[in-house]
Amino acid sequence: MSGEIHEECGVFGVYSRNAADVAGMVYLGLYALQHRGQESCGIVVSDNGSFKSHKDLGLISDVFSPGRLDALGSGNIAVGHVRYGTTGASSRANCQPVEVYHMKESLALAHNGNLTNSEALREKLELDGAIFHSTSDTETIAYVITGERLKHSSAPEAINSAMDIIKGAYSLAVMTKDELIAVRDPNGFRPLCYGITKDGCYCVASESCALQAVGATFIRDICPGEIVAFSKKGVTSITDHCGACKKTMCVFEYIYFARPDSVIDGVSVHNARISSGMALAKEHPVEADVVIGVPDSGIDAALGYSMQSKIPYGIGFVKNKYIGRTFILPGQPDRESKVRIKLNPIESTVKGKRVVMVDDSIVRGTTSAIIVRLLREAGAVEVHMRVSAPPFTHPCYYGTDIDSCENLIACHRSVDEIAKIIGVDSLGYLSLNDVDFSGKGDGFCTACFGGGYPTDVPDNQSKFCFENQASGAND
Amino acid sequence: MSGEIHEECGVFGVYSRNAADVAGMVYLGLYALQHRGQESCGIVVSDNGSFKSHKDLGLISDVFSPGRLDALGSGNIAVGHVRYGTTGASSRANCQPVEVYHMKESLALAHNGNLTNSEALREKLELDGAIFHSTSDTETIAYVITGERLKHSSAPEAINSAMDIIKGAYSLAVMTKDELIAVRDPNGFRPLCYGITKDGCYCVASESCALQAVGATFIRDICPGEIVAFSKKGVTSITDHCGACKKTMCVFEYIYFARPDSVIDGVSVHNARISSGMALAKEHPVEADVVIGVPDSGIDAALGYSMQSKIPYGIGFVKNKYIGRTFILPGQPDRESKVRIKLNPIESTVKGKRVVMVDDSIVRGTTSAIIVRLLREAGAVEVHMRVSAPPFTHPCYYGTDIDSCENLIACHRSVDEIAKIIGVDSLGYLSLNDVDFSGKGDGFCTACFGGGYPTDVPDNQSKFCFENQASGAND
Amino acid sequence: MSGEIHEECGVFGVYSRNAADVAGMVYLGLYALQHRGQESCGIVVSDNGSFKSHKDLGLISDVFSPGRLDALGSGNIAVGHVRYGTTGASSRANCQPVEVYHMKESLALAHNGNLTNSEALREKLELDGAIFHSTSDTETIAYVITGERLKHSSAPEAINSAMDIIKGAYSLAVMTKDELIAVRDPNGFRPLCYGITKDGCYCVASESCALQAVGATFIRDICPGEIVAFSKKGVTSITDHCGACKKTMCVFEYIYFARPDSVIDGVSVHNARISSGMALAKEHPVEADVVIGVPDSGIDAALGYSMQSKIPYGIGFVKNKYIGRTFILPGQPDRESKVRIKLNPIESTVKGKRVVMVDDSIVRGTTSAIIVRLLREAGAVEVHMRVSAPPFTHPCYYGTDIDSCENLIACHRSVDEIAKIIGVDSLGYLSLNDVDFSGKGDGFCTACFGGGYPTDVPDNQSKFCFENQASGAND
Amino acid sequence: MSGEIHEECGVFGVYSRNAADVAGMVYLGLYALQHRGQESCGIVVSDNGSFKSHKDLGLISDVFSPGRLDALGSGNIAVGHVRYGTTGASSRANCQPVEVYHMKESLALAHNGNLTNSEALREKLELDGAIFHSTSDTETIAYVITGERLKHSSAPEAINSAMDIIKGAYSLAVMTKDELIAVRDPNGFRPLCYGITKDGCYCVASESCALQAVGATFIRDICPGEIVAFSKKGVTSITDHCGACKKTMCVFEYIYFARPDSVIDGVSVHNARISSGMALAKEHPVEADVVIGVPDSGIDAALGYSMQSKIPYGIGFVKNKYIGRTFILPGQPDRESKVRIKLNPIESTVKGKRVVMVDDSIVRGTTSAIIVRLLREAGAVEVHMRVSAPPFTHPCYYGTDIDSCENLIACHRSVDEIAKIIGVDSLGYLSLNDVDFSGKGDGFCTACFGGGYPTDVPDNQSKFCFENQASGAND
Repeated sequence: MSGEIHEECGVFGVYSRNAADVAGMVYLGLYALQHRGQESCGIVVSDNGSFKSHKDLGLISDVFSPGRLDALGSGNIAVGHVRYGTTGASSRANCQPVEVYHMKESLALAHNGNLTNSEALREKLELDGAIFHSTSDTETIAYVITGERLKHSSAPEAINSAMDIIKGAYSLAVMTKDELIAVRDPNGFRPLCYGITKDGCYCVASESCALQAVGATFIRDICPGEIVAFSKKGVTSITDHCGACKKTMCVFEYIYFARPDSVIDGVSVHNARISSGMALAKEHPVEADVVIGVPDSGIDAALGYSMQSKIPYGIGFVKNKYIGRTFILPGQPDRESKVRIKLNPIESTVKGKRVVMVDDSIVRGTTSAIIVRLLREAGAVEVHMRVSAPPFTHPCYYGTDIDSCENLIACHRSVDEIAKIIGVDSLGYLSLNDVDFSGKGDGFCTACFGGGYPTDVPDNQSKFCFENQASGAND
Repeated sequence: MSGEIHEECGVFGVYSRNAADVAGMVYLGLYALQHRGQESCGIVVSDNGSFKSHKDLGLISDVFSPGRLDALGSGNIAVGHVRYGTTGASSRANCQPVEVYHMKESLALAHNGNLTNSEALREKLELDGAIFHSTSDTETIAYVITGERLKHSSAPEAINSAMDIIKGAYSLAVMTKDELIAVRDPNGFRPLCYGITKDGCYCVASESCALQAVGATFIRDICPGEIVAFSKKGVTSITDHCGACKKTMCVFEYIYFARPDSVIDGVSVHNARISSGMALAKEHPVEADVVIGVPDSGIDAALGYSMQSKIPYGIGFVKNKYIGRTFILPGQPDRESKVRIKLNPIESTVKGKRVVMVDDSIVRGTTSAIIVRLLREAGAVEVHMRVSAPPFTHPCYYGTDIDSCENLIACHRSVDEIAKIIGVDSLGYLSLNDVDFSGKGDGFCTACFGGGYPTDVPDNQSKFCFENQASGAND
Repeated sequence: MSGEIHEECGVFGVYSRNAADVAGMVYLGLYALQHRGQESCGIVVSDNGSFKSHKDLGLISDVFSPGRLDALGSGNIAVGHVRYGTTGASSRANCQPVEVYHMKESLALAHNGNLTNSEALREKLELDGAIFHSTSDTETIAYVITGERLKHSSAPEAINSAMDIIKGAYSLAVMTKDELIAVRDPNGFRPLCYGITKDGCYCVASESCALQAVGATFIRDICPGEIVAFSKKGVTSITDHCGACKKTMCVFEYIYFARPDSVIDGVSVHNARISSGMALAKEHPVEADVVIGVPDSGIDAALGYSMQSKIPYGIGFVKNKYIGRTFILPGQPDRESKVRIKLNPIESTVKGKRVVMVDDSIVRGTTSAIIVRLLREAGAVEVHMRVSAPPFTHPCYYGTDIDSCENLIACHRSVDEIAKIIGVDSLGYLSLNDVDFSGKGDGFCTACFGGGYPTDVPDNQSKFCFENQASGAND
Repeated sequence: MSGEIHEECGVFGVYSRNAADVAGMVYLGLYALQHRGQESCGIVVSDNGSFKSHKDLGLISDVFSPGRLDALGSGNIAVGHVRYGTTGASSRANCQPVEVYHMKESLALAHNGNLTNSEALREKLELDGAIFHSTSDTETIAYVITGERLKHSSAPEAINSAMDIIKGAYSLAVMTKDELIAVRDPNGFRPLCYGITKDGCYCVASESCALQAVGATFIRDICPGEIVAFSKKGVTSITDHCGACKKTMCVFEYIYFARPDSVIDGVSVHNARISSGMALAKEHPVEADVVIGVPDSGIDAALGYSMQSKIPYGIGFVKNKYIGRTFILPGQPDRESKVRIKLNPIESTVKGKRVVMVDDSIVRGTTSAIIVRLLREAGAVEVHMRVSAPPFTHPCYYGTDIDSCENLIACHRSVDEIAKIIGVDSLGYLSLNDVDFSGKGDGFCTACFGGGYPTDVPDNQSKFCFENQASGAND
């Protein structure tokens, strides 16, 4: 149930030599990236350096009515952003892309990730007279880039210099008056790629599925540490920060965040999930009659488990597709009613059967426990849960909300204890060794599974916890 | 792509001995029936005979904010309705349930189906001085029942008498000041069932999945021709019209309309679809590497095809779950862009493979052609389409919008011609003989597939066409 | 403070020989009649007999966005309605104009007034099989007219016959497929007039100010009891019911409801109010330094009082023009805060002065008491209240909400008692004898002031009260 | 028709020793100041230094639903703002109060006025690394204050220092974590005053009418150049900048912007307008039968004209009070239709009469011409226009939108020419000498009437024009 874990953002940018409906293209691109953030979104269009923007809380479809989109007009460059965040009256100030109006060079900036030295940077900037309107990292990045811009003759060079200052996870789509710039941090924590349309427009996107959504052909991923600029001069790349450190792409992009039809750093997300399911079947086999996945994120791994184990694959649940994120139950609803209206078991699939139920994670465990109960009510005689990732035990500092210990069921509990809590006959997690989507055994950040932090982390480590975590299996 | 064919309605009713949150229960029930109609919805609550209602265009989640729902208050009986229909400023008048205020007995009425003698009845009523505020059949039914109510001492008796007058398809949830009445036409065209909650509330629903949504236990289907009344006196049934004609349940409920987790007249919808896929594999086998389903309606039959054919099942598409029914593309979008943003192939599933693509129907064929093109772009070397229902050739008069000939690709074309138009290597439809969900070879209306109309149909048969329809296969 | 008393409705209709923007004209006309009803509004357009409509709760400006108005399209006839009514989720069913679809003749009907035999008519209709969707009189009128239409060869004749059946107050704008019909009840309780535009379009309106709003020239008032039809055949009049009874135009139209720039039955509303103020000065003179009016309804009479008494006229209050009808004060506001934010005294006008404060009525008295207190706080040394109408003592059955006794301060109290409650130094009401706007001493309904009911009133006289009412003055 | 000229802003602030509904008080205060700006509004609440805010485009009543207001919670300090500005998708960024989050001291700032050295300041700040999110002066002020705050030990001292840097018109309400600070520029261009409630809360407001709206007692105006701080330490004042230059209060505050019930710098706005009308009658007498004012801004001066001239005062127009600022006419409306629906003459006042029509200004003249035409259509035999201010000839740099020459009818035309254009029998403007609201002949900024600019103005004087302006009268 990784529905309880959230990616922070998705970015999309377009560069066209001539005036075009770049806003419309960003709109389509963001539609394909909506799964990366549903709290707010925004688009900024540049028509030869004159910026128009619209940003608000809500889904792409709510925020951008046809009239709103038309009002952005045509232009030659545009950047867009979808964002996850906490709700609240004032959070509109945190909507992206961030726009900066400056005599030297105005810019708009869309950011996916999280800085690890944000607080220190902010303190220094404020002491130099800077004022902040929001609490987002992105405003800090904007300040640092603008500060460097005063010392350098071009935006890419300013960004190159800013990369010496900012630390942590960042995939950026930056727009100036005459160029679109894609930036990926040296660790390559978050994905970023680009492609080209038949009309010769360059598109930058968090995931390749967004390139397909606008009919663009994938060219390549931005390398960790690379700055790629699109302008009248063509495509130029600055690689000074490439290779500065080991690549540590977020493993949870493969497990849950990214769309299965995306290919990231050469690996198909769908295939990665099928492989996880197959590895899981090898690690934690069980005698059963049917393998089912918890929609939507457990489906691919369930199919992999079935393929490896030869136990038939079945469709175990119907998910109500009319339940939006604002779904509110009337009266004083218990959590069970809420799950029940979202997810209903198909009795004919599970009745009288020994069921293997595959999901991609267990966060708090509450929802898993309810689903298991629903399966038993529908007649399942055994329920064996298999999780296509290791247990969460450590917080994430790189742009997801895998948080403090007390909210993670695996943090202070053994697998046996967890199995008991959620009421399954057996439980098996994928082991950390099997989390290998590149097939080469390296190149991933597995910090949230206890795999170690690839960078310095903030001093104030209030999120941390080290003891007693679940790490194996009880089957 | 039965997404192009629409069911007209879903109904839900609750009877409680004591004041309860009956509006909240109907709300949950309608949430589970939302797939049966997304144009408008409504709930009417009776608090000891005093009606409160709210009805509007839109989805349940849009129309019923928590405040709106609270405003309905508690009560002992409630009925609700979801409706499909054409959009338009004035269609609010057609929202249901219909409320009738009358000195003899006020009532609220939710209807799923379509009368075949509506025009004649309306003419007669108008000549007697009746005035109509809407163009819906349901207002006609309300008139007939109220007319009979003046002659009979109870609502169920009035309805029993009205059933001699109205002809066609109707599953009704009717509320008077002290009873909830479920009515199903003698042919049993549309489903209707009832159950009971732990608290002893009776619930009437178009489909059993809605009973589960409110935590109610399924008791039984309403029989074709039966009137079941729930009141302080308990549950009473009038069966005068049962057996008056052969049962002819709409076969398309199994193929597309109903939710897979529903069980209708004893048959699991999910199982029916799996069986169709298996029958299809027997009828139209092909050598291939992977079987994929077109989401969402082709998934179950694809799994059945895979089970029977032993060709591996794969996940062929990602459907964008943020695309609502009001999805509007900016600018002058072609249909292909619209399909592309909704449905993206997973390259790793189909690249270099011979693909069997299963769907539940082909209506106009335009969307199918685009999907096939997307699959080939993603690298599929062969595409074999299999359809888990016979071709549509005749219009429906019983409550769906399977319409006039010119919109149905199969109406004047052979299977070979259709295959060419949609660009597949082979095409196979399920034959009419294999449409047998009860396993007994009877009891279904297959009029839309040319299986003959089980009742008189309206004289003005402008929808009709008879010649040249697709009927076999080209593989 | 007649803001506490409400008119029920305003009507507007347009007839054009050729297709024109009749919806736009009705929109403008209703804008000018908005003061007659702010709860809901609607427009129905006929394009050669094909009706399009839009009706909803809210002000004209809220309900009719440019898009909504465009969607009504052009046509040759249109009718519109503004309505006052109680709020509530279900009252959308009571929005007008009422549309009736009938094989003999469809029609749309906008009604201002109130029937006195509505309940009896409704009972009879229901026993004949009629069903009602709303609780409004207008649906009853629609039934009666349609019933007569089956027996007569034209709509005006059917209406002429219906006028024998319906009793009470009604000014109607009725639209059929080829004519616009204006109808005024034999007593002429509510105003109704018509005019013609430069383009030859006929307009029917509740008040002449609405004719000016569309640039039409006033032709004449519809006579009490008259039916005037506008069609291709020109203007035809049926006068069978004219003179059937004495004309008894509602006197409160002059005192409060109508706009001062309207002329009704030959009398300028503004002049009528100036005259009331002058009569009031003669009846209840007082020594004072300044005469002020309570905005907006007391301004005209205050000017009259000043003209007659030679006491200087001053501007006593600023009314906050941004306070809409949905004004809600935060927290737990007392009524005084609410008045204070709406109406603030101008200190420089009243400080150290003896003030005559003129208003058109006192309903509950609560607001008057607060206003008087505000004046004293601002430094007024004496406050003498003068009311330009007699005290309310009887309920109205003809289309206003002057209601039951307990809500009327004058009902069981003497003028002295009222003066004490509202805290004034003296209080004087206009006497019934001086309520003579035609200058001929007759032709008005003054039932609410105890002047006697000009028709039979409903049996169930729950609104009545007879004793102890205020009738004179205490000064 | 000063409706065509706009004030930029209104500010309101509250300081309470204890937690209170300070948001609710600001809400009421802003309601009373809504006339100073209708484009956007906002409130920021401090609960012991923790800020909550809500700001958006729209009127107070639209932006602050009860839920929105509740969400701001209670606090001890709050500031609010209403703003006029050009509409547009991106202008939400310009909503005030501006919030600044800074380690040294966070603050919220509401500003009424306009800096004259804004561009130069901004250039300097940007070269030092500052980035701007908006185009408003207020962000510049925030930067300057924050920059000074780093050098000074308290916010009032920082502001005192900032006042050496910023030039032009500014009345500010500033909130820090523990104090509310009121600041007025040394010229005193815009009004600002404070008062105290019964509960001991201090309120700062642009106009005294807003103090009355919250039940506060007026204490005094903030002096030009003064800084007044409200905190636990009580009320402290810094007067270093007082007397630095001559006071030059904007004369148009008296003529049009301020509410008549406000008293500014000791002068009643209502009285000032009455006096203008009296001076006008002395300067430009005429034989006539009635004096009428153009609502709302011409009413007070018309009464003064009548008082001085002894020509009877009459009510000449009814203004449609349901026309909001978003009023849109259907189809292709001419300007005349738009005026006609807003303002209708009362025939009985003007028919057959020689009319003196008083307004407070003529901007473009288009609307005046239409109104004069409407009066003649209603039967006025002569129309003499009197304007209670001198003609506009110069742009304003101090916070109103009296703009470039080409939009001002008086800029290149004589009074005779203007009289001809608007179609009056005579026209008279108040002379610059008579613009003396303090009775002492000094202390006002009359720059827009050619009275000279009291400060340096921006170099880029694109708004300027000097020749041929109207300056006298033609009668």
